[in-house]
Amino acid sequence: MKQFSSFMDLVETRRSIRSYKSKEVEEEKLNYVLQAFRKAPSAKNLQPWKLIVVRDKKKIRDLSIACNNQTFLAEAPMLIVACAREDDAYGVMGGYMNSYPIDLGIALEHLMLAAAEKGLGTCWIGAFREKLVKDLLDVPESVRVVALTPLGYPAMEGRNRERKPLSEIICYDKYIE
Amino acid sequence: MKQFSSFMDLVETRRSIRSYKSKEVEEEKLNYVLQAFRKAPSAKNLQPWKLIVVRDKKKIRDLSIACNNQTFLAEAPMLIVACAREDDAYGVMGGYMNSYPIDLGIALEHLMLAAAEKGLGTCWIGAFREKLVKDLLDVPESVRVVALTPLGYPAMEGRNRERKPLSEIICYDKYIE
Repeated sequence: MKQFSSFMDLVETRRSIRSYKSKEVEEEKLNYVLQAFRKAPSAKNLQPWKLIVVRDKKKIRDLSIACNNQTFLAEAPMLIVACAREDDAYGVMGGYMNSYPIDLGIALEHLMLAAAEKGLGTCWIGAFREKLVKDLLDVPESVRVVALTPLGYPAMEGRNRERKPLSEIICYDKYIE
Repeated sequence: MKQFSSFMDLVETRRSIRSYKSKEVEEEKLNYVLQAFRKAPSAKNLQPWKLIVVRDKKKIRDLSIACNNQTFLAEAPMLIVACAREDDAYGVMGGYMNSYPIDLGIALEHLMLAAAEKGLGTCWIGAFREKLVKDLLDVPESVRVVALTPLGYPAMEGRNRERKPLSEIICYDKYIE
């Protein structure tokens, strides 16, 4: 396995992978990425999450359709569906919002960085119809589906996406447009 | 600097730090953690974010009060305030939600992991009154404050928090309570 010289090196290695080999993911590697998710911080350490690991081929195909027909998802040997138990999360982040999307964002990114470290591909999937995903996986009404990702060996390299320069996104001591 | 044997090692090193030395953070290290934020993925790569780096001592004190009187925040040489430009984010994640809390969760966790790599401390702060923070930093009405963190050298070790076992948070092929 490739060794990473720094966290930045790992961050730059993680890419959105939209083509997968059929090769199975070893249980040891799956366990590693799940552990990286499990160890994530969450508001008040409430850990308001549940991951569904989907390996059933028919369900994977049906989920790819529920994800606005992103058919490449059906190439992967598994999909991971990140769910949030909204009622278990911190309800007043900033005094105004439920923490669950932040909690799940952190934890699923942990999983994806751990996957990149192990040579596995992932892809943040936000374009999906929650109702369809919930019906396919028996997700209770009170539980939200936040995002999905395929998990498997990349069949191609991800592309490097441009980012805004620091000067556009950082300001000092007060907000400046 | 400590070398990390794996991403998991880094994940386990990041702790919530609630006591800081007054020692300044070197510009090179600040730049590194900001770059780790900048390089984060976001829905449709929209990067709907702005960070305010606060080093003004009076503003830091006032912010610590706006964060429900978490006075330890005023020990740190700087606070970082993570803001979201809601209108610039992906509006229909899962068909139902704005992506900004997920985007900011990912990116701010990048910053915190990069900080841990450099021996710096951070702490997810979700207990704050958004209106007060916005007033202190001239944040426009249309911009949300998602979270804050102090950034500085730890004056004590963070404690290891328990996490739920994998068996409680993972299920296969369908949702199981």
